[in-house]
Amino acid sequence: MIKVPGFLGSGIHSGIKKKWKKDLALIYAEEPAKASAVFTKNIVRAAPLEVGMEHIKGGLCQAVLVNSGIANAYTGKRGLRDVKTTTKKLAKELNIDESLVFPSSTGLIGTPLPVDTITQAYPKLISELREGGFEDASEAIMTTDAFPKHSITKATIGGKKGTICCIGKGAGMISPNMATMLAYILTDINISKKALSKVLKNSVNNSFNRIIVDGDTSTNDTVLIMTSGRLGNKAVGDYGADFKKLEAAVTQVASDVAEMIIKDGEGATKAVKITVIGAKSTKDAEKVARTIGNSLLTKTAFYGEDPNWGRIVAAAGRAGVEFDPDKIDLFFDDHKVISSSKVVMDEKKAHKILKKPKFEVTLNLKNGKASSYVIASDLSFEYVKINAHYRT
Amino acid sequence: MIKVPGFLGSGIHSGIKKKWKKDLALIYAEEPAKASAVFTKNIVRAAPLEVGMEHIKGGLCQAVLVNSGIANAYTGKRGLRDVKTTTKKLAKELNIDESLVFPSSTGLIGTPLPVDTITQAYPKLISELREGGFEDASEAIMTTDAFPKHSITKATIGGKKGTICCIGKGAGMISPNMATMLAYILTDINISKKALSKVLKNSVNNSFNRIIVDGDTSTNDTVLIMTSGRLGNKAVGDYGADFKKLEAAVTQVASDVAEMIIKDGEGATKAVKITVIGAKSTKDAEKVARTIGNSLLTKTAFYGEDPNWGRIVAAAGRAGVEFDPDKIDLFFDDHKVISSSKVVMDEKKAHKILKKPKFEVTLNLKNGKASSYVIASDLSFEYVKINAHYRT
Repeated sequence: MIKVPGFLGSGIHSGIKKKWKKDLALIYAEEPAKASAVFTKNIVRAAPLEVGMEHIKGGLCQAVLVNSGIANAYTGKRGLRDVKTTTKKLAKELNIDESLVFPSSTGLIGTPLPVDTITQAYPKLISELREGGFEDASEAIMTTDAFPKHSITKATIGGKKGTICCIGKGAGMISPNMATMLAYILTDINISKKALSKVLKNSVNNSFNRIIVDGDTSTNDTVLIMTSGRLGNKAVGDYGADFKKLEAAVTQVASDVAEMIIKDGEGATKAVKITVIGAKSTKDAEKVARTIGNSLLTKTAFYGEDPNWGRIVAAAGRAGVEFDPDKIDLFFDDHKVISSSKVVMDEKKAHKILKKPKFEVTLNLKNGKASSYVIASDLSFEYVKINAHYRT
Repeated sequence: MIKVPGFLGSGIHSGIKKKWKKDLALIYAEEPAKASAVFTKNIVRAAPLEVGMEHIKGGLCQAVLVNSGIANAYTGKRGLRDVKTTTKKLAKELNIDESLVFPSSTGLIGTPLPVDTITQAYPKLISELREGGFEDASEAIMTTDAFPKHSITKATIGGKKGTICCIGKGAGMISPNMATMLAYILTDINISKKALSKVLKNSVNNSFNRIIVDGDTSTNDTVLIMTSGRLGNKAVGDYGADFKKLEAAVTQVASDVAEMIIKDGEGATKAVKITVIGAKSTKDAEKVARTIGNSLLTKTAFYGEDPNWGRIVAAAGRAGVEFDPDKIDLFFDDHKVISSSKVVMDEKKAHKILKKPKFEVTLNLKNGKASSYVIASDLSFEYVKINAHYRT
């Protein structure tokens, strides 16, 4: 069971979705918690993000309200009015300041929020709050997700064992800069304000920002971190050994959830880590890795378990990065496929690696010392099926 | 029948492909013809392009040798040696200078060219040369293409009726900057050297560079234009009324073939013209149009005939272009779907438009006067099927 000292959770069916699926979640901190958040880079931003951005400016949060089924995106002035109503009413119900409520939505774009359905469910939502309620919450934030996503770990800070957990959702529309992706990181470790936003930024950059399903970014992406400080340690600052430990633990839970999202990538059958080494700069390495991870031809070849190194090399070649194609090495896991541009692949060995649900592609550009990576899903029949008829 | 005064064509089965499919084409000019070419921007370039680039520097071409089945890409020094052998032997057979032979290849990456198979077929290839041989040639350059692609038109220059024809191939891997796409434009209209390269550049930019299947660019893309000058007109210069007429005609045949490529886009069921108007700059408009045309979520929605305007707006929002999402208009053909960010779509009408094999999406950013467009295919089960197992 997921428990984080100082936090309660709940997840219920309010009526936004049909068929008694859970669709409303609440994360509640027993006292106002220090918090920080990052948001989508899409300029079409959903209404809840506007309110969330405003509220998080105070650096404190006590209640996170998330609904699934309707994104409240592209709903104009009405959408903004609606989310203000739902947050205001929840604040009143919880007897806390409105600015301490952080709203999120995920689901259909362009449909108005059923305000009454949501607010009428508050008494039930609040009454079900409990220490172990995060499994329910993680279920209630699902849309096309095949399974709920959460991860928990421990870190020893100042001799005390703290807890870090992440609950999240996401399947399709996942790309470079997050995407219909919501994640909430909760911890009891006391962290300084500066360290909190730094640890969030760094861990998101090394987890959620590394995964590629289809390259689309959403209007609603949000990652929030909150700390109850209940561990009672001296606040972790933004550098030093304790910060490093904290960063590793937060990155771990975030990476766990990110990998679950890849595995759940609409119809995905593979999670492929694409690493580019020997690049002139990290930016170059990332550009090449992303171009390979986004290539439809590469993704369909992964799905077909076809060791089509030609498509990988061709994708690298169009990334807009200078390198000498005659020098590169390419590996599937530890098996060398190309050695200084000579094909040395053992067809059988390569095919065996690609049959695995998880494998690595490593490309050495031999042009420098920088490296980067992404984790990409494959492109399957299922992806097309799920997305061809999502709306109608 | 396609005939262009001064040119002969042929297409045969040489043995590169199995099953007696045509795999070797020759386009022959009775005299050295003025020529110009553009090539892929992928830095991984196939061996024939290296030779073609060198030979075209002289501005003349007499024989275009194209094989399908094997791309001779990523074949290192051997690949370069092989294409030099095939071009040299053809030059000898035709008794012309080596530099007048322009080689192209399309097919599998990383497999060496079967030099003997090709050169042994020369006598037959040459003996079958004839005025009406371009249908055979356009068949012989096919790979995953479902049908051969050619277009012909006339233009009156200096009171004389000239002919312009384009034969091409391409299906998958089609994207912004051409891609496993070969096209050869032939005309009898006399054109100055400067005008020839200008008309090629402009027409390619408004045809082949507008089409999006999967965003991958190939190692072998080539568009070549040749003129026999047989019409006997005063050479068309690089501006003025005659140039405009010529440009329109060349763009027309190139656009025809480009549209055939979209229709043949591996497993494509739709050709969707995506136009962005009201942009600050043409570059902005093109960026937004390309992002929409490349979005997997948009492409699967087109396939599902789902008027999911939310995905179009979300794709526009992540294009990296500044605009006010609250001001935009969106149309499916003439039907207004969004008016100043208000959804005014008639679900039935919209659905009827999306059921058509060809329709237009127009997005008005209301941020300026510039516009641009792309033509995109949808993303179908067939695409995944064809590309999951191309190699093995």
